[in-house]
Amino acid sequence: MSYRLSLLVFAASHVSALWPIPQSISTGSTQLQLSPSFDITLSGIETPPGDLTDAISRTKQYLFNDKLQRLVEGRGASDADAIRSAQHLTKLTLVFQGENALTISEEAVAELESRVDSYTLTVPANGQDATVTANSTLGLFRGLTTFSQLWYDWEGTTYTPEAPVDILDSPAYPYRGFMLDTARNFFPISDIKRTLDAMSWVKMNTFHWHVVDSQSFPLQVAEFPDLSAKGAYSSSFVYSTSDIKDIVAYAAARGIDVLAEFDTPGHTAIISQAYPEHIACAEATPWETYANEPPAGQLRIASNATVNFTTSLVSAISSMFTSKYFSTGGDEINANCYADDAATQADLSASGKTFTEALSSFTQSTHEALRAAGKTPVVWEEMLLDYNVTSLGNDTIVMVWISSDDVAAVAEKGYKLVHAASDYFYLDCGAGEWLGNDVSGNSWCDPFKTWQKAYSFDPTANLTDEQSQLVLGGQHLLWTEQSSPSNLDPIVWPRAAASAELFWSGPGRNGTDALPRLHDIGFRFNQRGVAAIALQPLWCALRPGLCNA
Amino acid sequence: MSYRLSLLVFAASHVSALWPIPQSISTGSTQLQLSPSFDITLSGIETPPGDLTDAISRTKQYLFNDKLQRLVEGRGASDADAIRSAQHLTKLTLVFQGENALTISEEAVAELESRVDSYTLTVPANGQDATVTANSTLGLFRGLTTFSQLWYDWEGTTYTPEAPVDILDSPAYPYRGFMLDTARNFFPISDIKRTLDAMSWVKMNTFHWHVVDSQSFPLQVAEFPDLSAKGAYSSSFVYSTSDIKDIVAYAAARGIDVLAEFDTPGHTAIISQAYPEHIACAEATPWETYANEPPAGQLRIASNATVNFTTSLVSAISSMFTSKYFSTGGDEINANCYADDAATQADLSASGKTFTEALSSFTQSTHEALRAAGKTPVVWEEMLLDYNVTSLGNDTIVMVWISSDDVAAVAEKGYKLVHAASDYFYLDCGAGEWLGNDVSGNSWCDPFKTWQKAYSFDPTANLTDEQSQLVLGGQHLLWTEQSSPSNLDPIVWPRAAASAELFWSGPGRNGTDALPRLHDIGFRFNQRGVAAIALQPLWCALRPGLCNA
Repeated sequence: MSYRLSLLVFAASHVSALWPIPQSISTGSTQLQLSPSFDITLSGIETPPGDLTDAISRTKQYLFNDKLQRLVEGRGASDADAIRSAQHLTKLTLVFQGENALTISEEAVAELESRVDSYTLTVPANGQDATVTANSTLGLFRGLTTFSQLWYDWEGTTYTPEAPVDILDSPAYPYRGFMLDTARNFFPISDIKRTLDAMSWVKMNTFHWHVVDSQSFPLQVAEFPDLSAKGAYSSSFVYSTSDIKDIVAYAAARGIDVLAEFDTPGHTAIISQAYPEHIACAEATPWETYANEPPAGQLRIASNATVNFTTSLVSAISSMFTSKYFSTGGDEINANCYADDAATQADLSASGKTFTEALSSFTQSTHEALRAAGKTPVVWEEMLLDYNVTSLGNDTIVMVWISSDDVAAVAEKGYKLVHAASDYFYLDCGAGEWLGNDVSGNSWCDPFKTWQKAYSFDPTANLTDEQSQLVLGGQHLLWTEQSSPSNLDPIVWPRAAASAELFWSGPGRNGTDALPRLHDIGFRFNQRGVAAIALQPLWCALRPGLCNA
Repeated sequence: MSYRLSLLVFAASHVSALWPIPQSISTGSTQLQLSPSFDITLSGIETPPGDLTDAISRTKQYLFNDKLQRLVEGRGASDADAIRSAQHLTKLTLVFQGENALTISEEAVAELESRVDSYTLTVPANGQDATVTANSTLGLFRGLTTFSQLWYDWEGTTYTPEAPVDILDSPAYPYRGFMLDTARNFFPISDIKRTLDAMSWVKMNTFHWHVVDSQSFPLQVAEFPDLSAKGAYSSSFVYSTSDIKDIVAYAAARGIDVLAEFDTPGHTAIISQAYPEHIACAEATPWETYANEPPAGQLRIASNATVNFTTSLVSAISSMFTSKYFSTGGDEINANCYADDAATQADLSASGKTFTEALSSFTQSTHEALRAAGKTPVVWEEMLLDYNVTSLGNDTIVMVWISSDDVAAVAEKGYKLVHAASDYFYLDCGAGEWLGNDVSGNSWCDPFKTWQKAYSFDPTANLTDEQSQLVLGGQHLLWTEQSSPSNLDPIVWPRAAASAELFWSGPGRNGTDALPRLHDIGFRFNQRGVAAIALQPLWCALRPGLCNA
């Protein structure tokens, strides 16, 4: 491998449609076709991990099955002559240059900052072997992902119009995620797996799974079977313990860590179906008094029994996931719920604790249990900024959701943070009020958050250089009051790809320049069975720049 | 048939989940199950039309395949005992009481005001035969549609919890439509057919097909083959003449008339690919100067050759459709396009005509061709309100799209009208700006138009009683700058069902009361393969009224 660094360009307006755009890329303009006998081989690893060989198999399928035509007028007709006389690429070699090869799955769940995603990719124009090199199997996987996006179809020939290709790539931020709420409405495993595949295609690495909430408890927890037996929408709307293993393994094999969330102490009304003794203000009305949305219900933070129950539950749930991270939530705690709950008031009175002290003890208990299991706690921003929980360890990762304006305050307190702000990354905004009787209502977080808006986000705005080091990355999020399997793909894709590139390639890129590439990855998603929406009329997608204002 | 009219109630909050709600309905609370040997028979017609027997077959499939569980806590578990001892319904008889039975397809394309949709439906509680009576096959079809919505599944048994049922039904307005734009992005026939099925389930009767526009010309016209050969996005993104026949027949068999639109003289840029001589300002830049969206291009209204060409084309296209109606469009004509077009200026100068006079002549020519073919012209509102086209016959139907505020002006001029206002019925609003370089842009018609908003529409607001007679009905519309097959179902359903009920059942109903029924039809759509979205968390859908503010 040699790099002609002088030739590497930064996000130039070449025809390459890679998403996210590599840190450094050089492309030519020579046609190169994939040989029908094309194969991918591996060197530097004696016994290839099964998840890497599986990834190679999937890549070969994509290469020949994507059948994506170029997004240009004529769709590749003008390439036809050159394709016929093009050199054939017969081999891609993955070169492992690390010391001991772990599986992709092992590397995917390592500590965030320790993961090695970097890789190089070269595709000579003359038909000589292409090469991906990396010091990790995760890096090889990233390289495979990039390689699969180089190719187009014209009348049955798989080709690239831009050989030679030289790429040097690594992510700007270690956390690139997507959050799915499976409690407001349920999503079958097939939807989750398809989403994980799509995430991996744009090099996202964290599936933040908001698995339960006040509306339903679809998670089967072996030690607490009544939670899902009584709290799932139905017996078929349950993620069994084996389903969880399946999903976690599926994700990890695709370089994705599953960051599960058990939101506490709010957003837990449904637990009252199985354990009414642990829930204050369960389904209390009017719900507006007791919760941000129906039904009301919060864990009795001042009850020792409830603290023990919750801690056991956090331990049980977190042990189902291989991730080193686990979210205990902590958003939208309602004061009235506890004020009007005689049991909580009695517990507070007996212990002499304030709300904040009780919440701190509650949190300390669950977080210490996580740490004892080798896991790092993750919380929503209110735990730090609003409730002043005194027991938040310095290791705690804080997710900023209410507003990007709150990022600086989190950083000022010295906590690592993940960008998840509603004003940039909430996919559900702008679809109208979902409450039943609000004729002219809009969503609380209007307007719709466009991909351009997310793409324009500055992860270190208003932060000092030192504070900027606290930014782990960010994610798009889908809360599912108005979403279900019916619209999962179209509401998420390709919008969520905007943050995938933002946090992989780094901020500051021009959205107008990026649009042709985003079209391309969206259509490639379509070819692979993910229903990404059209961002423009196809007329525009075929004519970059002609549909700008 | 006898009606106990004193028992009929108006939109009461019973468990029935019919959509649209019948004009009069009485239901009981007796369980009745569908016999496994259930069948549908027909009386009063010697030779049943094939489309009616097909409709009967589809209905039987829905009855046993919907497998929709009731939207109540427990999903029907509380019905289980009563179901076991319930009477069995073994037969539904369709009783034709008219004189000469036409096919559904023939009745579906009759003059709007002459169609007979009315029917009665009785389902005794004791297992005696159910009956649909009507004076038309279209009415029998509407009755079948209603009948199919009465039934739920519990553990393999198909049952209704609300026998006996007595319904007397007919539509409030003759026009209940949905418009689809297949030019910005293309939709395969399978998507259109699925949409037609869904439309028929909520008794819509007009598919307004905005088939071509400036971006693409997917319609194959036998006499003008180059239009699609050069103007379609690709050879596979074409509706062939046989496809059109297929779709028209499919629609008609489902009680749906296909109102095709060839938008003229604006929105025709793509014609320049095949006939550059007929298009002014083709792809002129900056597009903002010459069109409302890219690409610019309008038919040269002042050219005799173009008038003849357009008239021939209108004749050719309209002859492909059996409908008595055809839209020549007429929205968003750009003055700069003609001002800067030397050919148009020369033609105007030679003829001594003003723009308005030329447009009037142009319109008169196409509309007279339609009338000669027995068809009624349909136009967008600007033709009447902005351009003051003097040649609009009194028969012309005007679609109000810019704003519902414009309805009164159309009615004041004495024209029949269809409600299609962007402030109530545009399904594309609120998804952000689709132009490529507008980072913080919202859609031009923000906010998102909720189903509640459409449902609250008053079709005769600000109209006198006499003017109110001009209202034919209305429709939801999907312009597809940001839509494609990926999001067709979720962006349309169940929202468009709101106008289906509004214009069938009549206005003035309470949306909050309607919501449980809308949930029900949405989930029934899901069971039948249409990806209607969730309007609320399932927790709310199972507990009517608990998710109101």
